[in-house]
Amino acid sequence: MPDRTPRERIVYATAQSIRERGVADTALRDVVARAAAPRGSLQHYFPGGKEQLVTEALQWSADFAAASVATAFDSMRAPTPGGLFAAMARQWREEFLRRGYGRGCPLLAATADAAGPDPRLCATINTGFDRWLTAVRDALRRMGVPAPRARSLAILMISSLEGAIVLARTRQDVTPLTDVARELRPLLDAAAPEAER
Amino acid sequence: MPDRTPRERIVYATAQSIRERGVADTALRDVVARAAAPRGSLQHYFPGGKEQLVTEALQWSADFAAASVATAFDSMRAPTPGGLFAAMARQWREEFLRRGYGRGCPLLAATADAAGPDPRLCATINTGFDRWLTAVRDALRRMGVPAPRARSLAILMISSLEGAIVLARTRQDVTPLTDVARELRPLLDAAAPEAER
Repeated sequence: MPDRTPRERIVYATAQSIRERGVADTALRDVVARAAAPRGSLQHYFPGGKEQLVTEALQWSADFAAASVATAFDSMRAPTPGGLFAAMARQWREEFLRRGYGRGCPLLAATADAAGPDPRLCATINTGFDRWLTAVRDALRRMGVPAPRARSLAILMISSLEGAIVLARTRQDVTPLTDVARELRPLLDAAAPEAER
Repeated sequence: MPDRTPRERIVYATAQSIRERGVADTALRDVVARAAAPRGSLQHYFPGGKEQLVTEALQWSADFAAASVATAFDSMRAPTPGGLFAAMARQWREEFLRRGYGRGCPLLAATADAAGPDPRLCATINTGFDRWLTAVRDALRRMGVPAPRARSLAILMISSLEGAIVLARTRQDVTPLTDVARELRPLLDAAAPEAER
């Protein structure tokens, strides 16, 4: 990441740490080391401490996820809902095959280990999932899926992708991602009969 | 839990703590207090310390999940795959409505915050998910779903249930659970055309 500022590198490093070990076990000192940032930069850029850092890392992650959906949609020559979901699953499949199974979804990790006792964190996670869901819903709408269906299919797509990521990590095997993409394709494509095939 | 032994109460309390805050933030002293067990009982029953306790709690949780699938199947008068999934989603819906959104799936929580750096924990989680998946696959087979389909549909069912649990917790709203059950029903039922409707 040569052209990222120290501040950006710290946010990125925090997101990766949350992906690996959750919020509770993310240590500020490790994050600074990982970001190759000067020690004082943490207090300088993040006076709100760990809470501010975790919040910004989750916001960055949600924006990244939403942008990835838009990119996947734009790169499809003949977009269909099932094709979009396959592309989303493929991004994770490629990540696991390239970098191993150590890193999951940061929003899910934060929900699992810290959301309960912390209402502010819960709100951040919620907003993050909403951004991602909105990106999926918007893409479905552009393929002709009616609004109520687009809402509930976005929930189904994100839910099954999240669960398949968890199963892929525990098995160290990408098959769950290809399974859910293959099984959901007919259901998803049937929701947009006018989309190009 | 009046008729559980202190040992059983400790395992149960550990599972509940993992569900609330993950493995990293589960503290042995809290677990003992929660289980209303004598202080010395932890060392007596669990000489392997936190690792043994977490392992047994995850095994207990997986057995509970697998047994719940079998119970749901046995209680359906006219079992169909979509009906089974709706029953699985309903168990979580009722849990959230009755006890709030503080507790998620312990296997997912353990994956999110601790699986990466700990191969033994990873193996325990993997075995746990396999027990749960096997229970779903066996029920699908009994409804006439062919073996390869039963395998991949079990992956789809557990994946989308896990993701919907996460979304329900962050939103403090059970709608994601009802959404995925409604959306998957036609797909699942079509896989067992001979099942009673």
